[in-house]
Amino acid sequence: MTNYSEYAEQYRRALLEDVIPFWERHSVDRECGGYFTCLGRDGTVFDTDKFVWLQARQVWTFAMLYNRCEPRLEWLTLARHGADFLLQHGRAPNGDWFFSLTRDGRPLVQPYNIFSDCFAAMALAQYGLAANDEEAAELARATYRNILRRRENPKGIYNKLVPGTRPLKNFALPMILCNLALELERLLPPEETEATIDACLKAVPGDFLDPERNIILENIAPDGGRVDSFEGRLLNPGHAIEAMWFLMDIGIRRGDRALIGKAVDLTLTTLEYAWDRDYDGLYYFLDRFGRPPQQLEWNQKLWWVHIEALIALSLGFAHTRRAECLEWYERVHAYAWERFPDPRHGEWFGYLNRRGEVLLPLKGGKWKGCFHVPRGLFRCWKIFESMEEK
Amino acid sequence: MTNYSEYAEQYRRALLEDVIPFWERHSVDRECGGYFTCLGRDGTVFDTDKFVWLQARQVWTFAMLYNRCEPRLEWLTLARHGADFLLQHGRAPNGDWFFSLTRDGRPLVQPYNIFSDCFAAMALAQYGLAANDEEAAELARATYRNILRRRENPKGIYNKLVPGTRPLKNFALPMILCNLALELERLLPPEETEATIDACLKAVPGDFLDPERNIILENIAPDGGRVDSFEGRLLNPGHAIEAMWFLMDIGIRRGDRALIGKAVDLTLTTLEYAWDRDYDGLYYFLDRFGRPPQQLEWNQKLWWVHIEALIALSLGFAHTRRAECLEWYERVHAYAWERFPDPRHGEWFGYLNRRGEVLLPLKGGKWKGCFHVPRGLFRCWKIFESMEEK
Repeated sequence: MTNYSEYAEQYRRALLEDVIPFWERHSVDRECGGYFTCLGRDGTVFDTDKFVWLQARQVWTFAMLYNRCEPRLEWLTLARHGADFLLQHGRAPNGDWFFSLTRDGRPLVQPYNIFSDCFAAMALAQYGLAANDEEAAELARATYRNILRRRENPKGIYNKLVPGTRPLKNFALPMILCNLALELERLLPPEETEATIDACLKAVPGDFLDPERNIILENIAPDGGRVDSFEGRLLNPGHAIEAMWFLMDIGIRRGDRALIGKAVDLTLTTLEYAWDRDYDGLYYFLDRFGRPPQQLEWNQKLWWVHIEALIALSLGFAHTRRAECLEWYERVHAYAWERFPDPRHGEWFGYLNRRGEVLLPLKGGKWKGCFHVPRGLFRCWKIFESMEEK
Repeated sequence: MTNYSEYAEQYRRALLEDVIPFWERHSVDRECGGYFTCLGRDGTVFDTDKFVWLQARQVWTFAMLYNRCEPRLEWLTLARHGADFLLQHGRAPNGDWFFSLTRDGRPLVQPYNIFSDCFAAMALAQYGLAANDEEAAELARATYRNILRRRENPKGIYNKLVPGTRPLKNFALPMILCNLALELERLLPPEETEATIDACLKAVPGDFLDPERNIILENIAPDGGRVDSFEGRLLNPGHAIEAMWFLMDIGIRRGDRALIGKAVDLTLTTLEYAWDRDYDGLYYFLDRFGRPPQQLEWNQKLWWVHIEALIALSLGFAHTRRAECLEWYERVHAYAWERFPDPRHGEWFGYLNRRGEVLLPLKGGKWKGCFHVPRGLFRCWKIFESMEEK
C-alpha cells in the first residue's frame, strides 16, 4: 500500500527545508534588487543578468507560498523584493515586458517573448493578493488583457515567419492561458474568466490533439490542420503533461469529471510515448513521425518535465484513483528523486543527459529558476496530504 | 613515417566514391528544383523545406569541384540546378536573401540571418566561374557588397537587443569574410579585396583574441572589450579553428609566414582547450571561465568541428612542418574517421553525443548539408597530395 503521508512529508521537507532555503540564501540581490537566478551547484552566482520571466516566477513562488502555504513575513518580503524590481524596470514604454535586464535593471533584450508577460501577470496577481496591493493587482489585470490582445501574433515585430506562407499556431500560449485564467480569476469579472477558459478548452487539447496517437502537437495550422514540417511534427511532452494538470485544475473547479478523465488519459498516452525505454526518464522533444528532431537536446532529461509529470499523475490519481496513474507516478517518482536532487548542496539539478547523468551542474540559469521545483513540491505535498485525509 | 599518399587516397576516395555520389543520388529535387537537404541515414528525404544557406552551400560545392577538382559536366549541371532555384526564389525584394523557402520556393523565413547572403555570394561566385555566367557573378558581387554594407548591424530589424545597453560584436561574420574575400577575389578590384582582408585581419584574431589563454572569443564589445555575460563568455572552438585555416589561406596568398604561424599557434591552443579529456573529441561550446554554458548541446561532438580541425591541422602542418600539428592531426583523424563515416549507408553522421555515439542518424538537416564534409575531404586530399609531391 502506498503511504500517502510519507510522500506528503517527503515533498514538504524538500520544499521547506531544502529548496526554499536555497533560494532564500543564494538568490537575493540585496544591492540592485531582484533575484540572481544563475546559480552554480553550490549556489554561487555565475551570471547576473535578470530574465524577466524568471524574476516574475520567483515573485509568484514566494507570494503563492505566503498565500497558500503559510503567511510567513519573510516570504512576503522576498516577494516584494522582486515585485519592486519588476515594477521599476520590467516594462517597455508600450507596456509589454522586456525579456531580460542587466543586473541593475537596464533593458537588455526586447519584449519579443510573450511569456515574460504571462509570468509577470501571474506574479503580480499573487503578489497583489499577498501584499493587498491594488496597484500590483491592476497591473496584473492590464498585463493579462494585453496578452489576450496580442495572442494572435504574440511575437509581433519579432516574428521571422513570412506572413501567409505557412502560418502556425503554437501550443504554449493557449496552454499557459489555461493556468493564467485561474491565477487571475480573483481579479476579473466571472464572465471574462469563463470566456477565456472556454476558448482555452477549445484549443487544449481540442485543436492541438493528434487523435490517432492521443498526443498533443506543439504547432498546428491556424485552421487546426497538421503541418508536415520540423515545427509541425514537434512534440514537447513536458508541455503536454503540464497542460494536462492545468486542465485537471479547470475540471476540478468546474466539477467536470469528463475533463479530468480526458486529461488523465492524455497524460498517460503522452508518458507511454515519451518514456525512454532504454535509459528511463522522459525525452525533452520528439518528432511525431519519429524523424530526427531539430533540437540537439531532444533526448536530455529535464527537471521540469519530470516535476510536471509528478503533479499531473498525483493529481490525476487523487481525482480518478486509476491504477495506471499510481503505477506511472511511482515510476517517475523513483526516476526523478534518485537523480535530480543534489544530496551535497541541495536543490535540484536541471539538466541530465539521456543516461540520467548530470549534464550541467547549475541550480539556476537562463531557463531554470525558483519555480518548477517549489511549485511541484508544494502541489504534490498538498495532493498527497489531501489523500491521506480521506 | 606518415604516409601522405595514403591519407590523400583515403580522402579522395571518400569524396568521389562515397560523399558526392550520396548527394547526387539523394538530394536533387527534380520536381521543384533545388536540393533536399534533410536526408535520413539511408538518404531518404524526411523534410522538404529549403534552407537558403544549405542550397547555396551545395551550389558552391558542386561548382567548386567543377572548377578545382575536374570539369565534370554532371557537376556543373547539378550546380546549375541549385543556382537556378536560388536565383528564382532566394531573394527578398530588397536584395537580402531569405533564410528558408518551401519546397516549391515560396519564402518561409525572413532574411534575418546574413549567413544566407554570405553563402549565396560564395555559391554564385563559384558558379559564375564554372558556368561562365556573368549574371551570376554580378549578383555575387552585389550580394557581397550588400553584406559589407550590413556588417555593423547584420540582423537589422530582427535584432532583439535593446540598442545601447550592452552591444556585442559577433565573431562569425568577420570570420566568414576572411574566406569570402578570397572566394570573391576574382570578381573584385584588387584594392577592394585587400581592404577587406586588412579589416578582417584586424578583427580575426586581433579583437576577438583572449591573449591570456590564446583562444578566440565568440562575442566582444564593439570597442573590443570583454563582456562577462553568457554571450561574452562563449567559446565556439569549431568556429575558431575554421577561422584559423581561413587565415592560413590568407597567409599563403600573401606569403605571410608569421600569419600562418600565428594561425597554427591558435589552432593548437584551441584544440588543447576544447579537447574532451574523458571521452575524446572536440566540444561544441564552452564558457571561457568554465561556467555552465547556455547551450544544452555544449558537450556534443559535431562533424563540422572535427572536419575543420582536420583542414587546419593538415594545412598548418604542410606549411610549418611542426610536429604538434601532425600529432594533433593524427589524434583528430583517428577520432573522426572512426565515428563519423557511416559504414552502412555512406556519408558522415553529423551529431554524436559526448561519448561519441550517434545522437541523430541524419545525413543532412537544417544545419548539415553538402558542404563541410566534401569541402574538408577535398582540401585534405589536396593538402596531402601536395606534401607527397614534395
